[in-house]
Amino acid sequence: MHFSCPQRTLLNSINIVQKSVSTRTTLPILKGIYIEAQEHHLKLVATDLEVGIENLLDAEIISEGAFVIDAKLFGEIIRKLPDDDVEIKLIDSNQVFIKCQSAEFNVLCHNAEDFPELPSIDDKSNFSISNELFRNMIRQTVFATSQDESRPILTGVLMEIDEDSFNMVALDGYRLALRKGKIKSELNRKVVIPSRTLTELSRIISNDDEEDVEICLSENHAQFRFSNTKIISRLLEGEFINYKQIIPKEYKSRVKINTKSLLNSIERASLLAKEGKNNLVKFIVSDENMVITSNSELGKVHEEIIITLEGEEIEIAFNSKYFMDALKVFDEEEIYLNFTTNISPVIFKPVSNDHYTYLVLPIRLSSN
Amino acid sequence: MHFSCPQRTLLNSINIVQKSVSTRTTLPILKGIYIEAQEHHLKLVATDLEVGIENLLDAEIISEGAFVIDAKLFGEIIRKLPDDDVEIKLIDSNQVFIKCQSAEFNVLCHNAEDFPELPSIDDKSNFSISNELFRNMIRQTVFATSQDESRPILTGVLMEIDEDSFNMVALDGYRLALRKGKIKSELNRKVVIPSRTLTELSRIISNDDEEDVEICLSENHAQFRFSNTKIISRLLEGEFINYKQIIPKEYKSRVKINTKSLLNSIERASLLAKEGKNNLVKFIVSDENMVITSNSELGKVHEEIIITLEGEEIEIAFNSKYFMDALKVFDEEEIYLNFTTNISPVIFKPVSNDHYTYLVLPIRLSSN
Repeated sequence: MHFSCPQRTLLNSINIVQKSVSTRTTLPILKGIYIEAQEHHLKLVATDLEVGIENLLDAEIISEGAFVIDAKLFGEIIRKLPDDDVEIKLIDSNQVFIKCQSAEFNVLCHNAEDFPELPSIDDKSNFSISNELFRNMIRQTVFATSQDESRPILTGVLMEIDEDSFNMVALDGYRLALRKGKIKSELNRKVVIPSRTLTELSRIISNDDEEDVEICLSENHAQFRFSNTKIISRLLEGEFINYKQIIPKEYKSRVKINTKSLLNSIERASLLAKEGKNNLVKFIVSDENMVITSNSELGKVHEEIIITLEGEEIEIAFNSKYFMDALKVFDEEEIYLNFTTNISPVIFKPVSNDHYTYLVLPIRLSSN
Repeated sequence: MHFSCPQRTLLNSINIVQKSVSTRTTLPILKGIYIEAQEHHLKLVATDLEVGIENLLDAEIISEGAFVIDAKLFGEIIRKLPDDDVEIKLIDSNQVFIKCQSAEFNVLCHNAEDFPELPSIDDKSNFSISNELFRNMIRQTVFATSQDESRPILTGVLMEIDEDSFNMVALDGYRLALRKGKIKSELNRKVVIPSRTLTELSRIISNDDEEDVEICLSENHAQFRFSNTKIISRLLEGEFINYKQIIPKEYKSRVKINTKSLLNSIERASLLAKEGKNNLVKFIVSDENMVITSNSELGKVHEEIIITLEGEEIEIAFNSKYFMDALKVFDEEEIYLNFTTNISPVIFKPVSNDHYTYLVLPIRLSSN
């Protein structure tokens, strides 16, 4: 196995597949990148057995073959090489020769046959989604997944495909994020994707020029394909919560508020709140304004924001973190906050469309 | 005590003095910033008892007075406020009121009288140095100070003032950095400044427009003054090593080499060297070129660089870290490496001037 390709192209490919290299594994081969030379291209693959990434790049193939090399060391070497052609050659079953200008390396490698194969996904059950829409959908949901491994299904994001409608939903028992999108498909499936897959995917596609991501689903896996990259992830097993019944249809108070002002005020209020329990901030909604307060042993804050209120005045308290997380991913200048009672959830919605719904449970005030 | 000033000015001042706030102290007051309102300005002071920083800023003083407030919390609050005037008022001896637009904070504070006073330095024994020259001198020496607290004097940088000549020297037992500068002075003093003082100072003056830094020396302290800021540091006690006798005057081989090529080659060689002991890289200097090699259980590297050699060929080995540290601060395109034997130090010098000298001890090769 012997090939040559530009340093930049190779480095770009390493940077993509490196995102799925195992960092905490006892199997040395999973810390490696599988590199295969065939016909006119190279294939780089890395996997931690949960997520696998495969990237193809053009290269001058002098002889075909494959090896596995430590991802960290290989990445560091290629990163430090000059911007010129890199020649790589398998010398024997456990040694690779790397040359660029007057720099020459001999590095230990593993046998390619020991590297686990990625599952192959049938391309039939598939649909496409625009890169930008998909990135937004991920960004607006993935932060609301649970970190608690005791309910594994909640550590992922539900993808609900019902022909042309495509919803992504995450919830962690305290809050829920629902993003609606449109696609063209004839599928009817619900799958739950691990949050880590989506986070890495979102990072990789944000640097990609391709307009669409093709998604294929098999029984136990999802495959995301764009440009020369394939990301294959296992699906989370189990039934996702019936989220629709959690979202209230009615409200008693509707507040129209500037997203950025609300975020700034809550960020300031949380500076004192975070010292106490639950990052508690209190909202007092009246006809003229919304007052946000919080206090701890270090002091107290009082913030006022101008709002438009429809309906009843209300006093209610929240964990400020759950508010800030969502306000940071709202792209709309103004949002609605829909309240019912101070022990029922608040619903966030953009003023100008119905694409996004975010729900947070309040904290019961001791005076209730 | 009651004043008003623009959020940005106050934040800038906090960012400056915050660099000397104690992070590991059991005295809560040392985690604070002392704020004093007098006449038409505010004075902010922070100290960890080793380094103290004082900054003055213009403010509208409604009534005079002082308090001490937790630096971290105060910094976070001011940073999050809108870009507008901030009003601050001492309500009682342990509570401060902060207001900006519709945001209001009440925060606990300490009594100003409990804050340690900075030493006052007599302005007589002083000289000035250009901001840019001083920053370069710090950058080119401070990295070579020792991290080993068992010889405290080596954790600082020697400043040697002999009328118009001003040298800064750092050494750690394995390498030495000497930077020569020019000033106008009638002083004749040697003082050792803690490396931390110089690192913080360098960060602060790099954002400063003032052309000169005024340096005043008392028996136990140094004061650095520029714009509205004073940094006062204790001096390290004890006699600095007579560094002049360490620097060889003669050499047997002189290599002229491109600084950037050498740095790149050593960085690549050290990718494999760092896995072994001492980051060992080996240099083989011959008439045509210099070969750099290193190896570990993971593999080996071979690098060639074109050089001009005057004198004898030589084989010698070094800790690559000591080479890289110095090559990163050399501003010259080409440098000389002066070798004597493979058990005596190498000297780095710029090709075009005599401002900088760097010395590294070699590692004895087992074959010697």
